[in-house]
Amino acid sequence: MPNYETTPLNKLVRGPKRASYDQEQIYRILDKKFLCHVAYTWNGKAIVIPTAYGRKGDRLYIHGSLKNRMMSCLSEAGEACISVTHLDGLVLARSAFHHSANYRSVNIFGKVRKLEGDEEKMQALECILNHMVPGHWKHVRQPNDKELRATLVLEIAIDSASAKIRSGGVADEKEDLDLPIWAGVIPITETVGEPEYDPFLPEHIKAPASVLNYVKNHQP
Amino acid sequence: MPNYETTPLNKLVRGPKRASYDQEQIYRILDKKFLCHVAYTWNGKAIVIPTAYGRKGDRLYIHGSLKNRMMSCLSEAGEACISVTHLDGLVLARSAFHHSANYRSVNIFGKVRKLEGDEEKMQALECILNHMVPGHWKHVRQPNDKELRATLVLEIAIDSASAKIRSGGVADEKEDLDLPIWAGVIPITETVGEPEYDPFLPEHIKAPASVLNYVKNHQP
Repeated sequence: MPNYETTPLNKLVRGPKRASYDQEQIYRILDKKFLCHVAYTWNGKAIVIPTAYGRKGDRLYIHGSLKNRMMSCLSEAGEACISVTHLDGLVLARSAFHHSANYRSVNIFGKVRKLEGDEEKMQALECILNHMVPGHWKHVRQPNDKELRATLVLEIAIDSASAKIRSGGVADEKEDLDLPIWAGVIPITETVGEPEYDPFLPEHIKAPASVLNYVKNHQP
Repeated sequence: MPNYETTPLNKLVRGPKRASYDQEQIYRILDKKFLCHVAYTWNGKAIVIPTAYGRKGDRLYIHGSLKNRMMSCLSEAGEACISVTHLDGLVLARSAFHHSANYRSVNIFGKVRKLEGDEEKMQALECILNHMVPGHWKHVRQPNDKELRATLVLEIAIDSASAKIRSGGVADEKEDLDLPIWAGVIPITETVGEPEYDPFLPEHIKAPASVLNYVKNHQP
C-alpha cells in the first residue's frame, strides 16, 4: 500500500522519527479502535468531540442525530480532522524531561460528504457497527425507515493522514543513567470484561459468535 | 462545588439527560485520565491532537516543545477546547439504532495563557507529572535550565465545561424486547500491567511507592 504525501497539513514537525505516512500502518491503527475525536469549527472556535466511527477502504463513517451540532458544522465546512489514539504505556524516565507515553495515534484530514441515499446510509451504519464488533450487524434488528431518517451519516475521505507512534523503553540522558532513580515502563491496555446479559433476555438466547469473539480478542 | 453556567457553547443539545455541569463530577472525570484531545485552528482548519495534561484547581496544564504547532496556535488564539473521554463499555442493543457506548466525557472551554516565569513553569510540569502518576515528581530528576527553556507550558482556565455520561444497560424499544436477539453490555476498562524495569537499572533500585500505588490502583 502507498504512503500519504507529506504536506504542511499532515507533516510531523516535532518527533519526526515517530512519524509514519504508511497507509497499511495507518489502517491498522484505525481498525483497532472505534472511538475517535473530531475537530470542527463553531462560531469561529475549534471544538473537539468524541464519537464512534467505522472504516471501509479510504473512507471513515460517523453518525449522529439530525440536530447534532458537530454533524451540521462538519457537513457545512465540507472537511474534517479526526484523531484516533491508542495509549500503550507510561514511560517513566529518570528525568522529568524525558517522561513520555507509548502510543499509536493517527490524524486524518479529508473531505466530508453527507450521505443522502437510504442504501448508502444503511451500508455506512453496517460499517460502523461491524467496525465496533466485527460481524455483529447480521445479529441485530436493522434500522427501519423512521430510524434511518432520524440518523445523519457523514463520510470522511481519508485524503491525507499521518501516524505518530512511540514504543519501547526509557530514553534518558547518558549522564543520568547512574542516578539512584528508578526508571521503567508501565504498560497500559484497553481490556474488556465478561458480557453482561440484558435482564429481559429469555434464558435460551445466548451471545452470538460476534460478541464471544470480540470478548476473546480483547481479554488480557 | 458549583455548577458551570450553561451557554450555547457548553450546553448539550443532544442527549440532555446525559449532561452534567457539576464541577465536582467534571473534576473527578478529569482526574482519572491524563490523555486529552485538544482542538486548535491552523490556516482556518480545525485540527485535533492528543496530549497529556494535569489539573490544579480550575486550571489545566499542557506542555510541548517550542516549535510545537498546536502550542503556538493555541497561544496565539488565546483560547482552547479540550476533550477528555473514558470509554466504559459497549452497549449492544437488539436494534442497530439503540447501540451505544458507556462513557464519561468532559469538554473544557477556556482562556489560554503561556507561562513565562521559571517557577510557574516548574510548578505546572510538577502538576502534569503528578497528575499522571500521583507523587512521582519527587522521585525523579527535575528539569534543569536548558530543559525548562526548551519547554513551552500553557495554562488553560476551565471557564466553561460540560460532562456527558452514559452508564447502565441496554435501552431497546419495548416492541423489540421479544425478538430472538441477544442484547447486553461489554464492559471496557483501561488496565495496567506490571512495570517493566529499565535494563540499565542497578539491581538495588526498586520502583518507588508512586509507581507501585499507580499499578495497584489500575489493575483489574
